[in-house]
Amino acid sequence: MVMLEANLDDMTGETLGYVMTRLLDAGAFDVFFTPIQMKKNRPASKLSVLVAPADREKITALILAETSTLGVRYQNWHRTIMKRTFEEVETPYGAVHLKIATYGKTKKVTPEYADCAQLAQKCHIPLTTVYQAALQARKHQ
Amino acid sequence: MVMLEANLDDMTGETLGYVMTRLLDAGAFDVFFTPIQMKKNRPASKLSVLVAPADREKITALILAETSTLGVRYQNWHRTIMKRTFEEVETPYGAVHLKIATYGKTKKVTPEYADCAQLAQKCHIPLTTVYQAALQARKHQ
Amino acid sequence: MVMLEANLDDMTGETLGYVMTRLLDAGAFDVFFTPIQMKKNRPASKLSVLVAPADREKITALILAETSTLGVRYQNWHRTIMKRTFEEVETPYGAVHLKIATYGKTKKVTPEYADCAQLAQKCHIPLTTVYQAALQARKHQ
Amino acid sequence: MVMLEANLDDMTGETLGYVMTRLLDAGAFDVFFTPIQMKKNRPASKLSVLVAPADREKITALILAETSTLGVRYQNWHRTIMKRTFEEVETPYGAVHLKIATYGKTKKVTPEYADCAQLAQKCHIPLTTVYQAALQARKHQ
Amino acid sequence: MVMLEANLDDMTGETLGYVMTRLLDAGAFDVFFTPIQMKKNRPASKLSVLVAPADREKITALILAETSTLGVRYQNWHRTIMKRTFEEVETPYGAVHLKIATYGKTKKVTPEYADCAQLAQKCHIPLTTVYQAALQARKHQ
Amino acid sequence: MVMLEANLDDMTGETLGYVMTRLLDAGAFDVFFTPIQMKKNRPASKLSVLVAPADREKITALILAETSTLGVRYQNWHRTIMKRTFEEVETPYGAVHLKIATYGKTKKVTPEYADCAQLAQKCHIPLTTVYQAALQARKHQ
Ligand code: NI
Ligand code: NI
Ligand code: NI
Ligand code: NI
Ligand code: NI
Ligand code: NI
Ligand code: NI
Ligand code: NI
Ligand code: NI
Ligand code: NI
Ligand code: NI
Ligand code: NI
Repeated sequence: MVMLEANLDDMTGETLGYVMTRLLDAGAFDVFFTPIQMKKNRPASKLSVLVAPADREKITALILAETSTLGVRYQNWHRTIMKRTFEEVETPYGAVHLKIATYGKTKKVTPEYADCAQLAQKCHIPLTTVYQAALQARKHQ
Repeated sequence: MVMLEANLDDMTGETLGYVMTRLLDAGAFDVFFTPIQMKKNRPASKLSVLVAPADREKITALILAETSTLGVRYQNWHRTIMKRTFEEVETPYGAVHLKIATYGKTKKVTPEYADCAQLAQKCHIPLTTVYQAALQARKHQ
Repeated sequence: MVMLEANLDDMTGETLGYVMTRLLDAGAFDVFFTPIQMKKNRPASKLSVLVAPADREKITALILAETSTLGVRYQNWHRTIMKRTFEEVETPYGAVHLKIATYGKTKKVTPEYADCAQLAQKCHIPLTTVYQAALQARKHQ
Repeated sequence: MVMLEANLDDMTGETLGYVMTRLLDAGAFDVFFTPIQMKKNRPASKLSVLVAPADREKITALILAETSTLGVRYQNWHRTIMKRTFEEVETPYGAVHLKIATYGKTKKVTPEYADCAQLAQKCHIPLTTVYQAALQARKHQ
Repeated sequence: MVMLEANLDDMTGETLGYVMTRLLDAGAFDVFFTPIQMKKNRPASKLSVLVAPADREKITALILAETSTLGVRYQNWHRTIMKRTFEEVETPYGAVHLKIATYGKTKKVTPEYADCAQLAQKCHIPLTTVYQAALQARKHQ
Repeated sequence: MVMLEANLDDMTGETLGYVMTRLLDAGAFDVFFTPIQMKKNRPASKLSVLVAPADREKITALILAETSTLGVRYQNWHRTIMKRTFEEVETPYGAVHLKIATYGKTKKVTPEYADCAQLAQKCHIPLTTVYQAALQARKHQ
């Protein structure tokens, strides 16, 4: 996996928000901003983009086109990933997909955010209520 | 004392650095940035300016002229301040002014940053060395 | 204008993102997060919500329902606001609305983000290109 | 409730961590740090302390004694608080106290962090497992 | 030295604080959080853990067990370290260990935080007073 | 290009500001601070310095001399850089140098901050006004 980074002290927050969406649409695994402090009292944002090695050049070109930076630095990172399977459970508010991740003895169950958010709005109940219901539904099977 | 604030998601770090200097030159007690996160994935900066009540309108006008905000919010704060006197001590590297602040039983001695920085560069020694020397010089009097 | 705040060290980023959208939909002027550091080594988020006084109770209830906080603090802030009018200009990429803000001698022209973002995607050109085109179009009238 | 604040650009992180503990021990409701950017390229910390009005002077004196600041600003905030009752539930790992908070139609159940952390370490299981078990235990009663 | 990292937008501050302690107890050189901004308006925390290469797998397993992440990225860093020796000095408040670090012509003296904090509380004096006393005690030898 | 980093929880903001200037004067490409949270409730700053490989040792020695850290970690990063040429344009307020950067089809025009800031102060007009004037001046040639 490749990490691409650029320090941006001559772009607005509006344009950065726009660029995040463009990068995610272009296939980046993850895009995140870190608040940093640069020279001459400049509050700035460090743009970090995690991509597959095959996408490095395409994403580099997108960063150079859409941001104010004149250079992009990149670096290879190794990764340890959990195995993932999916399940679906019925909650009083509707169906929710669960991500089941395993790594050795460790097993983690994570309700899909999108499903929970959709049901929370449809049923006018707090997001955490749907979230908890999904976790409990799985316990009972 | 009055606190003026504005959330800025449509200005660059370069311009913010420039505005900080203008505001300090215009008489603000203190100017500082806080990294915040605004809507639509926008990394932004909250500008905070501490001014005397008499300067509120002048500084408000400067903020509205020099930044991208269309509004400035303000609020009165009370303040508890220590009494301050000044002393000068001789260190092996040169003279340093000390701020002596008192509040009830509490007394604090703070070497003036500007003096220490100037001597550190002149004598090619770390800033903390000058700082410590100033504190020790006072102990010996 | 009323500022509502709550320090949140027992909520996830996912839920905070969800709550920001709910609060904006419910009529808050502005909603923003500030990264803070709380006791017991807890990285947390300070939620800040700017509302009209008439909406304080409704928004307070929404915060208490949708977040993990057991209390909301609030505070009145005064505001100085620029007068705003709107114009529309034709750019080579399409029409863009401009916000024209005035305050005494100060006049600021800000292209509407939404128009610029839409045209940038439609014409596959960087956002700043549309932004600059909108500013120049007005210069020529 | 009173909010006390001071901007600190001449103190170390070590001393700030020490001061947080002293302030909490001295009865502050909440103490938190906000990363800010001050003049002359100084990364700094804003210290915020929430206290009962009766404690303002005592806590102000402690801040002036234990930190490098020469002044403390303070401001009154109003607060809307949920009603709280406590329950205890049995989980497979041991007993956990639950905070039950209500506000109008809203009801929130929060397992006590201290109980969960203690059981998680005793039973060598992840904290969230105990947390979830406590929430489910209540569902079944 | 190996740097392990994970971006966490689906964990609470409480759990992050707990995990920091577990990781330090498990032998990590250093553990720190960086406030970041992830997609969908999510305020998040980047967890960074510095470990000896031999501990990479053990610490990776702990991160996957105790946090919500489904993957951990890691990277080798080289290090330049100062030689360290220890001294002990007597101050008016008690004994304090000093770390003496050298690198070429550079020599730095750092009073042990733990000793200073303990004496500051025992003698009810500010931490910086003990700290300064320790530095001065060494000057006199 | 080499990235040098150190986590600093035992230095003041004043000294960090001083060190940034020293490092830039010593030839670092870029120096920036990131607010981080370290153990024992310590708000800290991560110092990041981008240097040419040939300068690594010189800059490492400067960091070890001027900061409180006892070690510096470093890492090689690759870089993709845009080609740069310079132009000068006449604006109603004076001459401004423009950086013209190209990468494949992408071309970006950036007015030199220093020129704009100087003219903005000389003519008592907002920085952005000079900035926009420089961009428009180029359009007309
Ligand atoms: Ni390589
Ligand atoms: Ni399905
Ligand atoms: Ni008022
Ligand atoms: Ni003098
Ligand atoms: Ni009031
Ligand atoms: Ni229209
Ligand atoms: Ni008052
Ligand atoms: Ni009990
Ligand atoms: Ni290597
Ligand atoms: Ni000993
Ligand atoms: Ni002596
Ligand atoms: Ni020239």
